[in-house]
Amino acid sequence: MDQPIGVIDSGVGGLTVASELMRQLPKEQLIYLGDTLRCPYGPRPKEEVIQYTLEMVDFLMKKNIKLLVIACNTATAFTLDLLREKLTIPVIGVIQPGARAAIKTTQNMKIGVIGTEGTITSKAYPDALHSIHSDINVYDLACPRFVPMVEKGVLTGEEAYRVVEESLQPLKSEKIIDTLILGCTHYPLLKDTIQSVMGEEVTVISSGEETAREVSAILGYQALLYEGERATKHVFYTTGSSEVFAHIAKQWLDIPIATVETAYLIST
Amino acid sequence: MDQPIGVIDSGVGGLTVASELMRQLPKEQLIYLGDTLRCPYGPRPKEEVIQYTLEMVDFLMKKNIKLLVIACNTATAFTLDLLREKLTIPVIGVIQPGARAAIKTTQNMKIGVIGTEGTITSKAYPDALHSIHSDINVYDLACPRFVPMVEKGVLTGEEAYRVVEESLQPLKSEKIIDTLILGCTHYPLLKDTIQSVMGEEVTVISSGEETAREVSAILGYQALLYEGERATKHVFYTTGSSEVFAHIAKQWLDIPIATVETAYLIST
Repeated sequence: MDQPIGVIDSGVGGLTVASELMRQLPKEQLIYLGDTLRCPYGPRPKEEVIQYTLEMVDFLMKKNIKLLVIACNTATAFTLDLLREKLTIPVIGVIQPGARAAIKTTQNMKIGVIGTEGTITSKAYPDALHSIHSDINVYDLACPRFVPMVEKGVLTGEEAYRVVEESLQPLKSEKIIDTLILGCTHYPLLKDTIQSVMGEEVTVISSGEETAREVSAILGYQALLYEGERATKHVFYTTGSSEVFAHIAKQWLDIPIATVETAYLIST
Repeated sequence: MDQPIGVIDSGVGGLTVASELMRQLPKEQLIYLGDTLRCPYGPRPKEEVIQYTLEMVDFLMKKNIKLLVIACNTATAFTLDLLREKLTIPVIGVIQPGARAAIKTTQNMKIGVIGTEGTITSKAYPDALHSIHSDINVYDLACPRFVPMVEKGVLTGEEAYRVVEESLQPLKSEKIIDTLILGCTHYPLLKDTIQSVMGEEVTVISSGEETAREVSAILGYQALLYEGERATKHVFYTTGSSEVFAHIAKQWLDIPIATVETAYLIST
Protein backbone atom coordinates (compact mmCIF):
# COMPACT_ATOMS: atom_id res chain seq x y z
CA MET A 1 0.00 0.00 0.00
CA ASP A 2 1.83 3.08 -1.19
CA GLN A 3 -0.39 5.67 0.52
CA PRO A 4 1.21 7.71 3.30
CA ILE A 5 0.69 7.51 7.07
CA GLY A 6 -0.90 10.67 8.48
CA VAL A 7 0.41 12.13 11.75
CA ILE A 8 -1.33 14.98 13.57
CA ASP A 9 -0.16 16.94 16.58
CA SER A 10 -0.93 20.21 18.28
CA GLY A 11 2.58 21.38 17.35
CA VAL A 12 6.12 20.04 17.22
CA GLY A 13 6.00 17.46 20.06
CA GLY A 14 4.66 14.79 17.73
CA LEU A 15 7.94 14.96 15.80
CA THR A 16 9.34 12.53 18.39
CA VAL A 17 6.66 10.09 17.23
CA ALA A 18 7.36 10.87 13.57
CA SER A 19 11.07 10.23 14.01
CA GLU A 20 10.34 6.82 15.56
CA LEU A 21 7.98 5.99 12.69
CA MET A 22 10.79 6.83 10.25
CA ARG A 23 13.26 4.67 12.20
CA GLN A 24 11.03 1.63 12.68
CA LEU A 25 9.16 1.85 9.37
CA PRO A 26 11.73 3.24 6.92
CA LYS A 27 9.73 2.17 3.85
CA GLU A 28 6.69 4.22 4.85
CA GLN A 29 5.98 7.82 3.86
CA LEU A 30 4.60 10.30 6.37
CA ILE A 31 2.44 13.38 6.12
CA TYR A 32 2.80 15.35 9.34
CA LEU A 33 0.53 18.19 10.34
CA GLY A 34 1.34 20.30 13.39
CA ASP A 35 -1.21 22.88 14.51
CA THR A 36 1.56 25.12 15.82
CA LEU A 37 -0.62 28.21 15.50
CA ARG A 38 -3.06 26.99 18.14
CA CYS A 39 -0.59 25.04 20.29
CA PRO A 40 -0.79 23.94 23.11
CA TYR A 41 -4.06 22.02 23.18
CA GLY A 42 -3.63 21.01 26.84
CA PRO A 43 -5.31 24.06 28.45
CA ARG A 44 -8.16 24.26 25.89
CA PRO A 45 -11.72 23.08 26.54
CA LYS A 46 -12.55 19.60 25.29
CA GLU A 47 -14.95 20.84 22.59
CA GLU A 48 -12.27 23.09 21.13
CA VAL A 49 -9.69 20.29 21.05
CA ILE A 50 -12.21 18.07 19.27
CA GLN A 51 -13.02 20.77 16.71
CA TYR A 52 -9.36 21.55 15.97
CA THR A 53 -8.47 17.88 15.74
CA LEU A 54 -11.33 17.19 13.33
CA GLU A 55 -10.09 20.04 11.13
CA MET A 56 -6.63 18.49 11.03
CA VAL A 57 -8.12 15.10 10.22
CA ASP A 58 -10.18 16.56 7.35
CA PHE A 59 -7.03 18.12 5.93
CA LEU A 60 -5.10 14.82 6.00
CA MET A 61 -7.98 12.65 4.79
CA LYS A 62 -7.92 14.67 1.57
CA LYS A 63 -4.29 13.56 1.16
CA ASN A 64 -5.47 9.94 1.00
CA ILE A 65 -3.70 8.61 4.11
CA LYS A 66 -3.95 4.89 4.94
CA LEU A 67 -3.61 5.21 8.73
CA LEU A 68 -3.87 8.11 11.17
CA VAL A 69 -1.60 8.63 14.18
CA ILE A 70 -2.81 11.07 16.84
CA ALA A 71 0.63 12.06 18.14
CA CYS A 72 -0.71 14.22 20.96
CA ASN A 73 -1.80 13.04 24.39
CA THR A 74 -4.58 15.61 24.81
CA ALA A 75 -6.08 14.95 21.38
CA THR A 76 -5.81 11.17 21.95
CA ALA A 77 -7.65 11.44 25.26
CA PHE A 78 -10.49 13.47 23.72
CA THR A 79 -10.87 12.14 20.16
CA LEU A 80 -9.55 8.55 19.78
CA ASP A 81 -12.90 6.80 20.22
CA LEU A 82 -14.72 9.41 18.13
CA LEU A 83 -12.23 9.14 15.25
CA ARG A 84 -12.24 5.34 15.31
CA GLU A 85 -15.99 5.48 14.89
CA LYS A 86 -15.92 8.18 12.21
CA LEU A 87 -13.05 7.02 9.98
CA THR A 88 -12.74 3.84 7.93
CA ILE A 89 -8.92 3.82 8.20
CA PRO A 90 -7.07 2.63 11.36
CA VAL A 91 -6.52 5.31 14.01
CA ILE A 92 -3.72 4.96 16.60
CA GLY A 93 -3.26 7.22 19.63
CA VAL A 94 -0.22 7.67 21.89
CA ILE A 95 -1.73 6.64 25.23
CA GLN A 96 -2.61 2.95 24.85
CA PRO A 97 0.73 1.84 23.31
CA GLY A 98 2.67 3.32 26.25
CA ALA A 99 0.25 1.72 28.71
CA ARG A 100 0.59 -1.70 27.09
CA ALA A 101 4.38 -1.49 26.94
CA ALA A 102 4.45 -0.60 30.65
CA ILE A 103 2.26 -3.59 31.53
CA LYS A 104 4.59 -5.83 29.52
CA THR A 105 7.63 -4.39 31.31
CA THR A 106 6.62 -4.09 34.96
CA GLN A 107 7.48 -6.88 37.34
CA ASN A 108 6.16 -5.28 40.55
CA MET A 109 2.98 -3.76 39.00
CA LYS A 110 3.93 -0.26 40.17
CA ILE A 111 3.99 2.09 37.19
CA GLY A 112 4.77 5.81 37.16
CA VAL A 113 3.31 8.22 34.60
CA ILE A 114 4.51 11.75 33.97
CA GLY A 115 2.84 14.28 31.68
CA THR A 116 1.43 17.77 31.44
CA GLU A 117 -1.16 18.99 33.97
CA GLY A 118 -3.90 18.34 31.41
CA THR A 119 -2.90 14.75 30.69
CA ILE A 120 -2.41 13.87 34.35
CA THR A 121 -5.71 15.49 35.36
CA SER A 122 -7.54 13.61 32.59
CA LYS A 123 -6.53 10.25 34.19
CA ALA A 124 -6.22 8.86 30.66
CA TYR A 125 -3.19 6.71 31.55
CA PRO A 126 -4.60 5.18 34.76
CA ASP A 127 -7.82 4.47 32.84
CA ALA A 128 -5.92 2.80 29.97
CA LEU A 129 -3.79 0.76 32.39
CA HIS A 130 -6.73 -0.35 34.53
CA SER A 131 -8.93 -1.22 31.55
CA ILE A 132 -6.35 -3.94 30.81
CA HIS A 133 -5.04 -4.78 34.30
CA SER A 134 -6.99 -3.87 37.46
CA ASP A 135 -4.14 -4.57 39.89
CA ILE A 136 -1.65 -2.05 38.51
CA ASN A 137 -0.71 0.69 40.98
CA VAL A 138 -0.33 3.97 39.12
CA TYR A 139 1.79 6.82 40.46
CA ASP A 140 1.10 9.84 38.27
CA LEU A 141 2.77 13.20 38.39
CA ALA A 142 2.45 16.42 36.38
CA CYS A 143 5.79 17.93 35.33
CA PRO A 144 4.82 21.42 34.11
CA ARG A 145 8.43 22.62 33.88
CA PHE A 146 9.52 20.07 31.25
CA VAL A 147 7.81 21.39 28.08
CA PRO A 148 9.02 25.00 28.45
CA MET A 149 12.54 23.70 29.15
CA VAL A 150 12.53 21.42 26.08
CA GLU A 151 11.20 24.26 23.94
CA LYS A 152 14.15 26.39 25.14
CA GLY A 153 16.42 23.60 23.88
CA VAL A 154 17.67 22.59 27.35
CA LEU A 155 17.80 18.79 27.14
CA THR A 156 20.91 17.69 29.03
CA GLY A 157 23.46 19.26 31.35
CA GLU A 158 23.26 20.72 34.83
CA GLU A 159 20.09 22.81 34.50
CA ALA A 160 18.14 19.97 32.86
CA TYR A 161 19.32 17.51 35.52
CA ARG A 162 18.35 19.85 38.34
CA VAL A 163 14.84 20.55 36.98
CA VAL A 164 14.20 16.88 36.23
CA GLU A 165 15.50 15.79 39.64
CA GLU A 166 13.38 18.35 41.50
CA SER A 167 10.28 17.49 39.47
CA LEU A 168 10.63 13.72 39.82
CA GLN A 169 11.42 13.83 43.56
CA PRO A 170 7.93 12.59 44.59
CA LEU A 171 8.34 9.50 42.36
CA LYS A 172 11.96 8.91 43.24
CA SER A 173 11.71 9.24 47.00
CA GLU A 174 9.18 6.41 47.22
CA LYS A 175 11.58 4.14 45.27
CA ILE A 176 8.90 1.72 44.34
CA ILE A 177 8.03 2.08 40.67
CA ASP A 178 9.98 -0.13 38.28
CA THR A 179 8.53 1.40 35.09
CA LEU A 180 7.96 5.03 34.10
CA ILE A 181 5.80 6.15 31.15
CA LEU A 182 6.76 9.40 29.44
CA GLY A 183 3.19 10.58 28.87
CA CYS A 184 4.04 13.65 26.81
CA THR A 185 5.55 13.74 23.33
CA HIS A 186 8.13 16.34 24.40
CA TYR A 187 9.61 14.15 27.13
CA PRO A 188 11.56 11.65 24.98
CA LEU A 189 13.96 14.54 24.32
CA LEU A 190 14.75 14.44 28.06
CA LYS A 191 14.91 10.63 28.19
CA ASP A 192 18.64 10.37 28.99
CA THR A 193 18.32 12.90 31.80
CA ILE A 194 15.17 11.26 33.17
CA GLN A 195 16.83 7.82 33.04
CA SER A 196 19.88 9.06 34.90
CA VAL A 197 17.73 10.74 37.58
CA MET A 198 15.53 7.67 38.07
CA GLY A 199 18.39 5.15 37.94
CA GLU A 200 18.95 2.04 35.85
CA GLU A 201 16.47 -0.08 37.81
CA VAL A 202 13.55 1.92 36.37
CA THR A 203 12.59 1.19 32.75
CA VAL A 204 11.60 4.38 30.95
CA ILE A 205 8.88 3.92 28.32
CA SER A 206 8.69 6.43 25.50
CA SER A 207 5.23 6.73 23.91
CA GLY A 208 6.76 7.57 20.53
CA GLU A 209 8.73 4.32 20.29
CA GLU A 210 5.76 2.27 21.44
CA THR A 211 3.27 4.04 19.18
CA ALA A 212 5.51 3.42 16.14
CA ARG A 213 5.72 -0.25 17.16
CA GLU A 214 1.91 -0.51 17.28
CA VAL A 215 1.51 1.33 13.97
CA SER A 216 3.80 -1.34 12.52
CA ALA A 217 1.67 -4.09 14.11
CA ILE A 218 -1.62 -2.65 12.83
CA LEU A 219 -0.23 -2.05 9.32
CA GLY A 220 1.00 -5.65 9.29
CA TYR A 221 -2.27 -6.97 10.66
CA GLN A 222 -4.31 -5.01 8.12
CA ALA A 223 -1.95 -5.89 5.22
CA LEU A 224 -1.25 -2.19 4.71
CA LEU A 225 2.58 -2.23 4.88
CA TYR A 226 4.46 -0.89 1.87
CA GLU A 227 6.82 -3.75 0.99
CA GLY A 228 8.46 -2.45 -2.16
CA GLU A 229 11.55 -0.27 -2.56
CA ARG A 230 11.34 3.47 -3.16
CA ALA A 231 12.96 6.73 -2.17
CA THR A 232 10.72 7.77 0.70
CA LYS A 233 9.61 11.38 0.84
CA HIS A 234 7.95 12.83 3.91
CA VAL A 235 5.80 15.95 3.83
CA PHE A 236 5.45 18.34 6.75
CA TYR A 237 2.69 20.90 7.23
CA THR A 238 2.29 23.48 9.94
CA THR A 239 -0.41 26.04 10.62
CA GLY A 240 2.25 28.40 11.99
CA SER A 241 5.71 29.51 10.94
CA SER A 242 7.37 27.02 8.64
CA GLU A 243 10.83 28.41 9.43
CA VAL A 244 10.42 27.86 13.16
CA PHE A 245 9.03 24.38 12.53
CA ALA A 246 11.92 23.35 10.26
CA HIS A 247 14.44 24.79 12.71
CA ILE A 248 13.05 22.81 15.64
CA ALA A 249 12.84 19.60 13.63
CA LYS A 250 16.50 19.94 12.67
CA GLN A 251 17.65 20.94 16.13
CA TRP A 252 15.71 18.38 18.16
CA LEU A 253 15.75 15.32 16.06
CA ASP A 254 18.09 15.90 13.21
CA ILE A 255 15.18 15.21 10.88
CA PRO A 256 16.18 16.66 7.52
CA ILE A 257 13.15 18.55 6.31
CA ALA A 258 13.50 20.02 2.85
CA THR A 259 10.28 21.99 2.90
CA VAL A 260 7.60 22.70 5.42
CA GLU A 261 4.33 23.71 3.84
CA THR A 262 1.69 25.92 5.39
CA ALA A 263 -1.68 24.32 6.10
CA TYR A 264 -4.80 26.46 6.13
CA LEU A 265 -7.44 24.80 8.26
CA ILE A 266 -11.06 25.90 8.30
CA SER A 267 -10.89 28.11 11.35
CA THR A 268 -7.21 29.11 11.45
CA MET B 1 -16.26 -9.10 24.91
CA ASP B 2 -16.40 -12.09 27.24
CA GLN B 3 -15.41 -14.74 24.69
CA PRO B 4 -12.05 -16.48 25.25
CA ILE B 5 -8.79 -16.11 23.34
CA GLY B 6 -7.79 -19.31 21.52
CA VAL B 7 -4.17 -20.45 21.58
CA ILE B 8 -2.88 -23.33 19.44
CA ASP B 9 0.51 -25.00 19.52
CA SER B 10 2.09 -28.23 18.35
CA GLY B 11 2.63 -29.13 22.01
CA VAL B 12 3.70 -27.51 25.26
CA GLY B 13 6.05 -24.78 23.93
CA GLY B 14 3.16 -22.39 23.42
CA LEU B 15 2.61 -22.39 27.20
CA THR B 16 5.32 -19.68 27.36
CA VAL B 17 3.03 -17.56 25.18
CA ALA B 18 -0.03 -18.49 27.25
CA SER B 19 1.72 -17.51 30.48
CA GLU B 20 2.58 -14.09 29.03
CA LEU B 21 -1.02 -13.64 27.88
CA MET B 22 -2.16 -14.37 31.44
CA ARG B 23 0.38 -11.91 32.86
CA GLN B 24 -0.28 -9.02 30.44
CA LEU B 25 -4.02 -9.60 29.98
CA PRO B 26 -5.20 -10.91 33.35
CA LYS B 27 -8.88 -10.19 32.59
CA GLU B 28 -8.91 -12.45 29.53
CA GLN B 29 -9.77 -16.15 29.47
CA LEU B 30 -7.75 -18.59 27.37
CA ILE B 31 -8.53 -21.85 25.65
CA TYR B 32 -5.24 -23.58 24.88
CA LEU B 33 -4.92 -26.56 22.57
CA GLY B 34 -1.59 -28.39 22.30
CA ASP B 35 -1.29 -31.12 19.65
CA THR B 36 1.14 -33.05 21.88
CA LEU B 37 0.31 -36.32 20.16
CA ARG B 38 1.74 -35.15 16.82
CA CYS B 39 4.48 -32.88 18.20
CA PRO B 40 6.91 -31.65 16.88
CA TYR B 41 5.60 -30.02 13.70
CA GLY B 42 9.05 -28.76 12.65
CA PRO B 43 10.19 -31.83 10.69
CA ARG B 44 6.78 -32.43 9.02
CA PRO B 45 5.96 -31.51 5.40
CA LYS B 46 4.18 -28.19 4.92
CA GLU B 47 0.91 -29.80 3.77
CA GLU B 48 0.75 -31.89 6.93
CA VAL B 49 1.40 -28.89 9.19
CA ILE B 50 -1.38 -26.99 7.41
CA GLN B 51 -3.82 -29.91 7.78
CA TYR B 52 -3.07 -30.42 11.49
CA THR B 53 -3.27 -26.69 12.19
CA LEU B 54 -6.64 -26.40 10.42
CA GLU B 55 -7.95 -29.26 12.55
CA MET B 56 -6.89 -27.42 15.71
CA VAL B 57 -8.49 -24.22 14.43
CA ASP B 58 -11.79 -26.02 13.70
CA PHE B 59 -11.79 -27.39 17.24
CA LEU B 60 -11.28 -23.93 18.81
CA MET B 61 -13.66 -22.09 16.47
CA LYS B 62 -16.45 -24.30 17.85
CA LYS B 63 -15.58 -22.90 21.30
CA ASN B 64 -16.47 -19.41 20.07
CA ILE B 65 -13.05 -17.74 20.46
CA LYS B 66 -12.70 -14.01 19.70
CA LEU B 67 -9.05 -14.08 18.60
CA LEU B 68 -6.63 -16.85 17.60
CA VAL B 69 -2.96 -16.99 18.60
CA ILE B 70 -0.75 -19.37 16.62
CA ALA B 71 1.81 -19.98 19.38
CA CYS B 72 4.10 -22.09 17.20
CA ASN B 73 6.77 -20.80 14.83
CA THR B 74 6.36 -23.58 12.25
CA ALA B 75 2.58 -23.23 12.12
CA THR B 76 2.87 -19.43 11.93
CA ALA B 77 5.27 -19.66 8.98
CA PHE B 78 2.97 -22.01 7.06
CA THR B 79 -0.57 -20.93 7.98
CA LEU B 80 -0.76 -17.28 9.14
CA ASP B 81 -1.74 -15.80 5.76
CA LEU B 82 -4.13 -18.65 5.02
CA LEU B 83 -5.88 -18.35 8.40
CA ARG B 84 -6.16 -14.56 8.14
CA GLU B 85 -7.94 -15.06 4.85
CA LYS B 86 -10.14 -17.89 6.07
CA LEU B 87 -11.24 -16.62 9.50
CA THR B 88 -13.28 -13.56 10.39
CA ILE B 89 -11.63 -13.18 13.82
CA PRO B 90 -8.13 -11.67 14.26
CA VAL B 91 -5.23 -14.13 13.93
CA ILE B 92 -1.84 -13.40 15.52
CA GLY B 93 1.33 -15.41 14.94
CA VAL B 94 4.58 -15.48 16.93
CA ILE B 95 7.03 -14.39 14.22
CA GLN B 96 6.03 -10.81 13.33
CA PRO B 97 5.76 -9.52 16.93
CA GLY B 98 9.31 -10.66 17.69
CA ALA B 99 10.55 -9.11 14.44
CA ARG B 100 8.88 -5.76 15.18
CA ALA B 101 10.18 -5.67 18.74
CA ALA B 102 13.71 -6.34 17.47
CA ILE B 103 13.45 -3.49 14.94
CA LYS B 104 12.28 -1.20 17.73
CA THR B 105 15.18 -2.26 19.94
CA THR B 106 18.18 -2.41 17.64
CA GLN B 107 20.49 0.56 17.36
CA ASN B 108 23.10 -0.97 15.04
CA MET B 109 20.62 -2.82 12.78
CA LYS B 110 22.34 -6.16 13.42
CA ILE B 111 19.81 -8.66 14.74
CA GLY B 112 20.40 -12.29 15.69
CA VAL B 113 17.69 -14.97 15.44
CA ILE B 114 17.87 -18.42 17.00
CA GLY B 115 15.35 -21.19 16.45
CA THR B 116 14.89 -24.81 15.44
CA GLU B 117 16.38 -26.10 12.17
CA GLY B 118 12.94 -25.83 10.56
CA THR B 119 12.32 -22.22 11.54
CA ILE B 120 15.83 -21.09 10.57
CA THR B 121 15.67 -22.93 7.22
CA SER B 122 12.26 -21.37 6.46
CA LYS B 123 13.83 -17.87 6.60
CA ALA B 124 10.56 -16.65 8.14
CA TYR B 125 12.33 -14.20 10.48
CA PRO B 126 14.64 -12.62 7.88
CA ASP B 127 11.61 -12.29 5.58
CA ALA B 128 9.52 -10.64 8.32
CA LEU B 129 12.37 -8.28 9.27
CA HIS B 130 13.16 -7.31 5.67
CA SER B 131 9.51 -6.81 4.73
CA ILE B 132 9.56 -3.92 7.22
CA HIS B 133 13.20 -2.78 7.07
CA SER B 134 15.47 -3.67 4.13
CA ASP B 135 18.72 -2.59 5.80
CA ILE B 136 18.58 -4.96 8.79
CA ASN B 137 21.45 -7.46 8.88
CA VAL B 138 20.14 -10.78 10.13
CA TYR B 139 22.41 -13.38 11.75
CA ASP B 140 20.39 -16.57 12.11
CA LEU B 141 21.43 -19.76 13.80
CA ALA B 142 19.71 -23.09 14.47
CA CYS B 143 20.12 -24.39 18.03
CA PRO B 144 18.93 -28.00 17.79
CA ARG B 145 20.17 -28.89 21.29
CA PHE B 146 17.92 -26.42 23.13
CA VAL B 147 14.47 -28.07 22.82
CA PRO B 148 15.56 -31.53 24.02
CA MET B 149 17.40 -29.89 26.93
CA VAL B 150 14.37 -27.79 27.95
CA GLU B 151 12.13 -30.85 27.70
CA LYS B 152 14.51 -32.65 30.08
CA GLY B 153 13.95 -29.73 32.50
CA VAL B 154 17.55 -28.45 32.30
CA LEU B 155 17.07 -24.67 32.26
CA THR B 156 19.87 -23.20 34.36
CA GLY B 157 23.08 -24.43 35.94
CA GLU B 158 26.37 -25.70 34.54
CA GLU B 159 25.07 -28.05 31.86
CA ALA B 160 22.59 -25.49 30.50
CA TYR B 161 25.27 -22.79 30.44
CA ARG B 162 27.72 -25.04 28.62
CA VAL B 163 25.22 -26.12 25.93
CA VAL B 164 23.98 -22.56 25.41
CA GLU B 165 27.52 -21.17 25.26
CA GLU B 166 28.67 -23.78 22.74
CA SER B 167 25.56 -23.31 20.60
CA LEU B 168 25.70 -19.51 20.56
CA GLN B 169 29.46 -19.35 19.90
CA PRO B 170 29.00 -18.35 16.21
CA LEU B 171 26.84 -15.37 17.24
CA LYS B 172 28.94 -14.43 20.23
CA SER B 173 32.34 -14.55 18.60
CA GLU B 174 31.36 -11.94 16.02
CA LYS B 175 30.26 -9.60 18.83
CA ILE B 176 28.20 -7.46 16.56
CA ILE B 177 24.52 -8.11 17.16
CA ASP B 178 22.84 -5.87 19.74
CA THR B 179 19.49 -7.72 19.69
CA LEU B 180 18.68 -11.43 19.74
CA ILE B 181 15.26 -12.90 18.92
CA LEU B 182 14.31 -16.15 20.65
CA GLY B 183 12.55 -17.66 17.62
CA CYS B 184 11.23 -20.76 19.36
CA THR B 185 8.59 -20.91 22.07
CA HIS B 186 10.75 -23.24 24.21
CA TYR B 187 13.62 -20.76 24.43
CA PRO B 188 12.15 -18.23 26.91
CA LEU B 189 12.69 -20.94 29.54
CA LEU B 190 16.43 -20.54 28.85
CA LYS B 191 16.27 -16.75 28.73
CA ASP B 192 18.38 -16.12 31.85
CA THR B 193 21.07 -18.50 30.66
CA ILE B 194 21.04 -17.06 27.13
CA GLN B 195 21.23 -13.52 28.52
CA SER B 196 24.18 -14.37 30.71
CA VAL B 197 26.02 -16.07 27.82
CA MET B 198 25.38 -13.17 25.40
CA GLY B 199 26.13 -10.43 27.96
CA GLU B 200 24.13 -7.41 29.08
CA GLU B 201 24.83 -5.41 25.91
CA VAL B 202 22.59 -7.72 23.88
CA THR B 203 18.82 -7.29 24.32
CA VAL B 204 17.07 -10.65 24.26
CA ILE B 205 13.59 -10.58 22.71
CA SER B 206 11.13 -13.25 23.74
CA SER B 207 8.41 -13.95 21.16
CA GLY B 208 5.93 -14.85 23.88
CA GLU B 209 6.14 -11.46 25.60
CA GLU B 210 5.92 -9.61 22.30
CA THR B 211 3.07 -11.72 20.96
CA ALA B 212 1.05 -11.09 24.12
CA ARG B 213 1.74 -7.37 23.74
CA GLU B 214 0.41 -7.43 20.15
CA VAL B 215 -2.64 -9.48 21.14
CA SER B 216 -3.36 -6.71 23.65
CA ALA B 217 -2.92 -4.08 20.91
CA ILE B 218 -5.20 -5.86 18.44
CA LEU B 219 -7.88 -6.54 21.09
CA GLY B 220 -7.74 -2.86 22.02
CA TYR B 221 -7.82 -1.72 18.41
CA GLN B 222 -10.77 -4.00 17.58
CA ALA B 223 -12.64 -3.08 20.81
CA LEU B 224 -12.53 -6.74 21.87
CA LEU B 225 -10.96 -6.38 25.34
CA TYR B 226 -12.91 -7.71 28.29
CA GLU B 227 -13.11 -4.75 30.64
CA GLY B 228 -15.31 -6.09 33.44
CA GLU B 229 -14.32 -7.99 36.55
CA ARG B 230 -14.65 -11.76 36.80
CA ALA B 231 -12.84 -14.81 38.12
CA THR B 232 -10.93 -15.88 35.02
CA LYS B 233 -10.90 -19.55 34.16
CA HIS B 234 -8.57 -20.96 31.55
CA VAL B 235 -9.17 -24.25 29.77
CA PHE B 236 -6.39 -26.49 28.48
CA TYR B 237 -6.75 -29.25 25.91
CA THR B 238 -4.17 -31.69 24.66
CA THR B 239 -4.30 -34.44 22.05
CA GLY B 240 -1.85 -36.47 24.13
CA SER B 241 -1.45 -37.35 27.79
CA SER B 242 -3.17 -34.85 30.04
CA GLU B 243 -1.05 -35.90 33.03
CA VAL B 244 2.21 -35.16 31.22
CA PHE B 245 0.82 -31.85 29.97
CA ALA B 246 -0.31 -30.72 33.44
CA HIS B 247 3.01 -31.80 34.94
CA ILE B 248 5.04 -29.78 32.42
CA ALA B 249 2.82 -26.71 32.81
CA LYS B 250 3.33 -26.80 36.56
CA GLN B 251 7.04 -27.50 36.39
CA TRP B 252 7.98 -24.99 33.69
CA LEU B 253 5.76 -22.07 34.34
CA ASP B 254 4.05 -22.62 37.61
CA ILE B 255 0.76 -22.31 35.77
CA PRO B 256 -1.83 -23.88 38.04
CA ILE B 257 -3.93 -26.07 35.80
CA ALA B 258 -6.89 -27.69 37.50
CA THR B 259 -7.85 -29.93 34.62
CA VAL B 260 -6.45 -30.72 31.22
CA GLU B 261 -9.03 -32.11 28.85
CA THR B 262 -8.38 -34.44 25.95
CA ALA B 263 -9.13 -33.10 22.48
CA TYR B 264 -10.07 -35.48 19.70
CA LEU B 265 -9.21 -33.93 16.34
CA ILE B 266 -10.43 -35.33 13.04
CA SER B 267 -7.37 -37.34 12.18
CA THR B 268 -5.81 -38.03 15.58
